[in-house]
Amino acid sequence: MEVVSKNRSFGGEQAVYRHVSKVCGVDMTFAVYLPLQAKDGSVPCLWYLSGLTCTHDNAMSKAGLQAHAAEFGVAIVLPDTSPRGEGVADDEAYDLGQGAGFYVNATQAPWKPHFQMYDYVVNELRELVQANLPVSDAHGITGHSMGGHGALTIALRNPDRYKSVSAFAPIANPTQSDWGRKQLEAYLGADESSWADYDATILLKEKGWHDDILIDQGASDQFLDLLRPEALAEVITKTRQPSVFRLQEGYDHSYFFVSTFARDHVEWHAKRLYR
Amino acid sequence: MEVVSKNRSFGGEQAVYRHVSKVCGVDMTFAVYLPLQAKDGSVPCLWYLSGLTCTHDNAMSKAGLQAHAAEFGVAIVLPDTSPRGEGVADDEAYDLGQGAGFYVNATQAPWKPHFQMYDYVVNELRELVQANLPVSDAHGITGHSMGGHGALTIALRNPDRYKSVSAFAPIANPTQSDWGRKQLEAYLGADESSWADYDATILLKEKGWHDDILIDQGASDQFLDLLRPEALAEVITKTRQPSVFRLQEGYDHSYFFVSTFARDHVEWHAKRLYR
Repeated sequence: MEVVSKNRSFGGEQAVYRHVSKVCGVDMTFAVYLPLQAKDGSVPCLWYLSGLTCTHDNAMSKAGLQAHAAEFGVAIVLPDTSPRGEGVADDEAYDLGQGAGFYVNATQAPWKPHFQMYDYVVNELRELVQANLPVSDAHGITGHSMGGHGALTIALRNPDRYKSVSAFAPIANPTQSDWGRKQLEAYLGADESSWADYDATILLKEKGWHDDILIDQGASDQFLDLLRPEALAEVITKTRQPSVFRLQEGYDHSYFFVSTFARDHVEWHAKRLYR
Repeated sequence: MEVVSKNRSFGGEQAVYRHVSKVCGVDMTFAVYLPLQAKDGSVPCLWYLSGLTCTHDNAMSKAGLQAHAAEFGVAIVLPDTSPRGEGVADDEAYDLGQGAGFYVNATQAPWKPHFQMYDYVVNELRELVQANLPVSDAHGITGHSMGGHGALTIALRNPDRYKSVSAFAPIANPTQSDWGRKQLEAYLGADESSWADYDATILLKEKGWHDDILIDQGASDQFLDLLRPEALAEVITKTRQPSVFRLQEGYDHSYFFVSTFARDHVEWHAKRLYR
């Protein structure tokens, strides 16, 4: 891990690292916030997955997570949203290719060689972080928009690896959305049966979750039609999945929404990760 | 005032406006955060002046002020750092011209026609804000780096207009710094006697301040030589100026520093503005 930057923040340390990713076949950049408590031993680890067009930097700079991570004593890991750089496939659209990895393992050309974000987040980056930084085995995961989709699908498929899950305005049902169908076909191929592993609504219906789930969704979100929170709410209701699903009056899809409710999410995870 | 954007944030509203500035002779953009309390009547108003290269957006997105403004019931006004656009003079250097107005009234060509940021902040924008938004007569002012310089010099010259003043890593003594001498000569001319009105260290020595002052400065700030906090500290000490001057171990010049101590500053101002 090469240090890109380190800044003192709320008594702890906000760092950015670059490393060679075997899974993605390219250098990857990620950010980690360590609270002061990490100086005395390992702390639980909350993953925050970002949305379309974002890098590790957006939430690091704009979500205000550090104050809450310092207060509740958890580390925050912020991965990039895709592989990047020369030799990595891309698309002119903002919602496909670089900046839009959708946290899947691509099986189709030209994406397959580098777009392995699911394995990268679940396995490779986690092993790197645990080997090099003072984080414990207690991991939680959250994210915003495409990152909320990533957080939910990754947690639901790996209940042994994550103790807690939440999401901000997640893409809740991508197999039925223009934020999903195009990308899943490009990355996974036309056979829709392979898409189900990357749809939170389908996964929750099939697998359930071992604890409660926190979802915040802005009621004035400009992308409600694409996010399809109603599909996830229906499954939560029908399966009696313990959850707190909050439709927040007046809030849109921006970081002003995320930052407003960031403390609630960090506290939610900390309580479950310290259990 | 034309609305550029509005976003719900911490129960209140983060807005960006554009307006025709007579003083600067060009359209200007600024941001205002109004807490929920402003729905029931006027609230005190804290001005936040930004640093070199910034617009209204940087602190709006990265300083985390909204959470604290919501908690303590104050509005936050974030002006731009200079006039901008075609027909406005500029310089290739990042620290002169657009993005680097230094909160002065320029008297020299080519800057004089538009670079009137002192009058803009003290008079024109204040009148616009008070005429159009629910803010009371109780105003405080703070800022970061060049904006800390702006906050201190503007407050010290207008003690009747500002009840409270603080600064984050201010350019404290620009008449003796490479962050200052070049710009003051460009904007005000070679006669250094005209520069004293824009130097916080000189102004504090001459005028004092009617209340206490809060200054936060990162002890690991990469620009300490340019900021010259020691000059301001010396005047504070010699003149027995009531102050809280904090040298914060390990903190640099970034928004990670500003956001860490933003709550302290907003609380500080709110206590004095609600007095």
